Amino acid sequence: MKALLAGPAQIMFQPSAITGVLFVAGILWGAISSGHAEVALGAVVGLVVATLTGYILGLPADEGEVGLWGFNGTLAGIAIITFLRSTPEAWVVLILTAAMTTWVRTGLNNISSAYGINSLTFPFVLCSWLFLSASRIFAGLDEVALSHPMLPAIHLSDWAATAPSSVWEAVEWPLRGIGQIMLQESWVSGALFLVGLLISSPKAALWAFIGSAIGTYGAIWMGGSMVAVESGLYGFSPALTAIALGAVFYRPSLGTTLWALLGTLATLFVQGATNIFLEPLGLPALTAPFCLTTWLFLLPRLAIGALHTTTNQSPPDHSHWHKTSVEHRS
Amino acid sequence: MKALLAGPAQIMFQPSAITGVLFVAGILWGAISSGHAEVALGAVVGLVVATLTGYILGLPADEGEVGLWGFNGTLAGIAIITFLRSTPEAWVVLILTAAMTTWVRTGLNNISSAYGINSLTFPFVLCSWLFLSASRIFAGLDEVALSHPMLPAIHLSDWAATAPSSVWEAVEWPLRGIGQIMLQESWVSGALFLVGLLISSPKAALWAFIGSAIGTYGAIWMGGSMVAVESGLYGFSPALTAIALGAVFYRPSLGTTLWALLGTLATLFVQGATNIFLEPLGLPALTAPFCLTTWLFLLPRLAIGALHTTTNQSPPDHSHWHKTSVEHRS
Amino acid sequence: MKALLAGPAQIMFQPSAITGVLFVAGILWGAISSGHAEVALGAVVGLVVATLTGYILGLPADEGEVGLWGFNGTLAGIAIITFLRSTPEAWVVLILTAAMTTWVRTGLNNISSAYGINSLTFPFVLCSWLFLSASRIFAGLDEVALSHPMLPAIHLSDWAATAPSSVWEAVEWPLRGIGQIMLQESWVSGALFLVGLLISSPKAALWAFIGSAIGTYGAIWMGGSMVAVESGLYGFSPALTAIALGAVFYRPSLGTTLWALLGTLATLFVQGATNIFLEPLGLPALTAPFCLTTWLFLLPRLAIGALHTTTNQSPPDHSHWHKTSVEHRS
Repeated sequence: MKALLAGPAQIMFQPSAITGVLFVAGILWGAISSGHAEVALGAVVGLVVATLTGYILGLPADEGEVGLWGFNGTLAGIAIITFLRSTPEAWVVLILTAAMTTWVRTGLNNISSAYGINSLTFPFVLCSWLFLSASRIFAGLDEVALSHPMLPAIHLSDWAATAPSSVWEAVEWPLRGIGQIMLQESWVSGALFLVGLLISSPKAALWAFIGSAIGTYGAIWMGGSMVAVESGLYGFSPALTAIALGAVFYRPSLGTTLWALLGTLATLFVQGATNIFLEPLGLPALTAPFCLTTWLFLLPRLAIGALHTTTNQSPPDHSHWHKTSVEHRS
Repeated sequence: MKALLAGPAQIMFQPSAITGVLFVAGILWGAISSGHAEVALGAVVGLVVATLTGYILGLPADEGEVGLWGFNGTLAGIAIITFLRSTPEAWVVLILTAAMTTWVRTGLNNISSAYGINSLTFPFVLCSWLFLSASRIFAGLDEVALSHPMLPAIHLSDWAATAPSSVWEAVEWPLRGIGQIMLQESWVSGALFLVGLLISSPKAALWAFIGSAIGTYGAIWMGGSMVAVESGLYGFSPALTAIALGAVFYRPSLGTTLWALLGTLATLFVQGATNIFLEPLGLPALTAPFCLTTWLFLLPRLAIGALHTTTNQSPPDHSHWHKTSVEHRS
Repeated sequence: MKALLAGPAQIMFQPSAITGVLFVAGILWGAISSGHAEVALGAVVGLVVATLTGYILGLPADEGEVGLWGFNGTLAGIAIITFLRSTPEAWVVLILTAAMTTWVRTGLNNISSAYGINSLTFPFVLCSWLFLSASRIFAGLDEVALSHPMLPAIHLSDWAATAPSSVWEAVEWPLRGIGQIMLQESWVSGALFLVGLLISSPKAALWAFIGSAIGTYGAIWMGGSMVAVESGLYGFSPALTAIALGAVFYRPSLGTTLWALLGTLATLFVQGATNIFLEPLGLPALTAPFCLTTWLFLLPRLAIGALHTTTNQSPPDHSHWHKTSVEHRS
């Protein structure tokens, strides 16, 4: 049961069933308030399918038990039903995509662990990109919410975001950014995710908010679009990088704190670049900017802060995120 | 001589000279019947150049002897002369592309073998993409049969394929899919390839037909285009994945059979996605969807079916496809 | 001090302070003569920032001392201020980009060293692509000199380059190609770079000129655009490959000489392909064609010419380019 409940929580690195339940509540709120309750169902189906896939394929149970089979599938379930019209064919695609994330994760970790990094949410990104793109070529799949493919346009300054006009907006926008981690524009969803994090790891909650705020205010500084700033689209990738670098992969110190802040800021630019790269294909960036930036900040294996080891850690236990050897072979 | 004759056969994993001869016959039939006999010459020149390159560079002869130097070059020779007008410059490019596939294969295998996977036909894909794209920028190369670059369009349902209207069509379309493995739209070519497979490995022949059929009927189910379905364009990548997963890389069992079927179906969607990814560049997908999907299904190293080992195998001998260590160093 | 001065020299693999000074002189000449003196300032700021980053992060000093922290940052500094309007935001981006190249290099080398290759100038390419693309989405960054995104066009023969009309042009165009290694169109810059190479390694200077000439005349043969040929845009990537394969990574022999010539010619086509790949994004190829081609010619680890080892080498010492093991871990 924890394998299932902790699945959504692992999207933000938390091996906690209660956090997972709060995350599902946040997804449900966002889905219903935007009139798309089927998105919450997609999340649950994705979670269940991906988790079952781990059992059926006989992947190592120690990972599955803490929710690591289900988090990519949860995200894939949300993404497929957010961007495709809810038809029987779309649900077949959702099941295929969610199932695939589980073994693609194992496969990508078999590569990345040699370099001391983890596939993070990239299995979700890769599988979703593949099946969402395929939906463009198949008439039976209706890519109702994908952007129209276009060549990158020149963005003028009258398009740029302005500073928040109230204290509430200043908090609301970063909260929306946290909501967008699971594709929910609602600040209530973001707040529920934040409470879920707080219960499992106050440090992770703090970094999530700081990360979303850096992305949001960095975008205002650099002249990002008003619509994207208000809806939290510059916040979600930096928030994930902030949790990863600030609260998971490095031991806390002055050096690692500065490093995590730098990585969070860099994520904003990688987010902008990814958006541009994908415009001709009309694909969403999903959490790719978080994955790429986090890898670029982990790969040098800096001496400034040793990678977390978990021998002397109390929960939340991130040890499964630090594996650096291939453990599952036939 | 076997190094040369088995080259085309290795496109479908067969180390057999007679299979190679039948494959060349199928290419010749397709080339002549479509009025492009030069394509068959391209295949032979590519095969010879790529095989000679292996000898000249002193690559390990055990691989060359079973045709592993020549299969990528054969495909590259077909692709270059299919998509470029047959001019002296195009033949220079063909020779360069075919030669390059040989050492790019060695180079990519030096990377991929660490993860228990093989570069498959990706050296052909990579080198062909590079030289075909370059042909767009050089006026001396005439990309006569490349698609016009365009942004992915919205495909409507009146464009979608319908079920075959006769038993013959139901067989013809998957046969064309097997023909398209070597870029031939002819069902006769497909049948010749199938006979070639039957002689070397009935199991591989069965999987090739099943794979092409899954791709073809899966595309009809999902609403692929009528033209692409009829001409076998949804069949060739799934057919290759089916041979690879069903008859080469896993020991037969119920589990591996289901796994191969799942991989074959997934290839259809990866094919659709690759087509979309490449539309803005006007490039053909070639066999990239087969390579990517097969990797994603091999990388997790599932315990459900051990990777083929070849110690107790009678011919056809696939042992060269299972190397997992770098054997050639300076 | 050598860590700083040798930085620019390492762009062409030279660990020499005097070469670095001549390279900066060439950049300064090109920048001033084209009315963009700020580009030379960008180079120096990028060099200083990237080199300081190595010290601050505590990366292995043996690499830093010979200029290996600074060369990617120098190029990044040039590229950012060449393509973006010189605003305060652009200089913030320049500093971020240059700093990032230093640890991205360490990170990518941690991967690539396992396969006997080096990240070359790819950290510069990757970081510049990311921040230049991001500039399209942020109104505060003005991508004043980036190409307009477009779908690859059909290039007709009236667009193609003709042979040089004088002996001087025959020399001027390859010299411009050497200048373009650092984004300078000036033949004087190219000549200054060549003198810098001559002082450090006459062999490298010879290969640089041969490489730029092969790229330039190969482009004329294949029908590249007149404008690109005259401004050296077909010369810079082949020149770098020529230095790498001809003067750095292989011991001189007949075999390795032919291999380096082949790699240099192949770079021309990879350059053309990269230009086409990037047209929909409006991004410059930078030195990516050199990196990719050099990797494809190093990865097979041919027996025809052993990789340089440096035990019996007098200066210039390329030993730092041959590391094949990860040396820096936390």
